[in-house]
Amino acid sequence: MTRILYDLAGADESFRFSPYCWRIKLALAHKNLPYETIPWRFTDKDAIAMSGQGKVPVLVDGDKVVADSQAIAEYLDAAYPAEASLFSEADCRAFANFVKSWTERSLHHAITPVVIADIYARLAPQDQPYFRQTREAALKRSIEDFAAGREAAMPAFRAALAPIYAVLKTQAFISGETPAYPDHIVFGALQWARLVSSTPLFTEDDAIVAWMNRVLAEYDLL
Amino acid sequence: MTRILYDLAGADESFRFSPYCWRIKLALAHKNLPYETIPWRFTDKDAIAMSGQGKVPVLVDGDKVVADSQAIAEYLDAAYPAEASLFSEADCRAFANFVKSWTERSLHHAITPVVIADIYARLAPQDQPYFRQTREAALKRSIEDFAAGREAAMPAFRAALAPIYAVLKTQAFISGETPAYPDHIVFGALQWARLVSSTPLFTEDDAIVAWMNRVLAEYDLL
Repeated sequence: MTRILYDLAGADESFRFSPYCWRIKLALAHKNLPYETIPWRFTDKDAIAMSGQGKVPVLVDGDKVVADSQAIAEYLDAAYPAEASLFSEADCRAFANFVKSWTERSLHHAITPVVIADIYARLAPQDQPYFRQTREAALKRSIEDFAAGREAAMPAFRAALAPIYAVLKTQAFISGETPAYPDHIVFGALQWARLVSSTPLFTEDDAIVAWMNRVLAEYDLL
Repeated sequence: MTRILYDLAGADESFRFSPYCWRIKLALAHKNLPYETIPWRFTDKDAIAMSGQGKVPVLVDGDKVVADSQAIAEYLDAAYPAEASLFSEADCRAFANFVKSWTERSLHHAITPVVIADIYARLAPQDQPYFRQTREAALKRSIEDFAAGREAAMPAFRAALAPIYAVLKTQAFISGETPAYPDHIVFGALQWARLVSSTPLFTEDDAIVAWMNRVLAEYDLL
C-alpha cells in the first residue's frame, strides 16, 4: 500500500508551497508514516473528486480518503495511536506561554489605542502625570492623540479578536472544556478593555461576553 | 494568615482594571484560595517596596512575597499542588485549536498581502485565472494592487510574528521541548511565506529560521 498526499504545486511541479499541505507533511513525519506526494494544481478538480470536495491536502491511505488538514491530522492520530501523538505531546505549560505571548504582543497592543485615554481619565490625580510620562515615552504618542485616533483603532481591535471567536465556536473555554490559565490571561485583557472603555465594546449577546460570563460563573464570581 | 493581593485601582478605589491583576484574581479563584485585595496606585511605590520592584500584581502569602503575574501563577501551582492546576488542566487539543485559529485568522492574513502577487507569478498558467478570480473576489483587491502595496504590508507582517519570537525566547518549540501539531501549523504558514516570497523575509540568523531548522532536523528533513 502506498500512502498518497495530493500536494499543491506551482508551474514548477517541485514548488510546493501550501501552508495546509506543509502541516500534513510534518504531521506524517512526526508519526513516522512514509508517503508519496502527487503534485496538484488548483484547477485539477477531477483528480481529487473522490474526496467529495475540491481542495488539498487530500490524503489517500489505503482505501481511506481524507480531505482538510485538520481532519487529516485527527485521522492520523486516531488511525495510528501507536505512533507519536500530534496533539497530546504538546506541553500544557507551552500552551499558557503561547497564549501569554499572543495576548501581550498582539491583543494588548490592539486594545491599548482604544482605551488608553479612558484609563488616563479614570486614574487617581496623583497617578496621571506618572501614567502620561511613562506611556507617552513608551508608545511615542500623546494621550490626546490616542483619544483622537480611538475610532481609527477599532478595526484592528476587532481583527485581533478573530482567533478568540474562532476558538469559541468549537469549545466552551480557551483551555478546552474547563477554564485554566490560558482563559485567565485572555480574560484579563478583555476585562481590562471592557471595564475601562467609555463606550461599550461588546453587545450582551456577543460570544466573548458569553464566554467571560462562563468563566466568572465557573468561579462563582458572576 | 491573610493572603493579600495588591491590585491596581483608579481614582475610584473600587475600579480595578489591570489585566495582569485580573489574571491572578482568576488564578486564585481557580485554586480556591481566599484572599483580600489592597487597592494600589501607580505611584504607591513604597507600599510594594518589599517586593523588590515597582509594579502590581504583588502577592503576599504568609511570609512569601511574589511579584509578576507569571511568577505568581507558577508560585501558586507549585505551592498548592493539591488544588486544581492552572496549567496541566488545559487540554492539549485546545492548544492546537488556539494555534490553528490564530494562524488562520491573524498570521495568514498578515502574510497574504506580502506574498499573494508572488504566488500568482509562480502558478501554472492554467491556474492563474482561477487563482485571480477566487482571491480577488474573496479579498476585494486586485493582484496588482497587492503587488503595489507589498512594502506597506511588511510592518503588519513583522508585528504578527511578535508572539512567535516571544515564545521562542523561553522554549525550543511552540509545543514545548519537542515539536507537535502546533509547530506544524505555524511552520506551514511561515514555510509558505518564505518559499513564495520574491525577497527574503528572514536573515539566516533569525530566531524563526533557527526554529524552522530545528523542526526539520527533528524529522530528518533538513
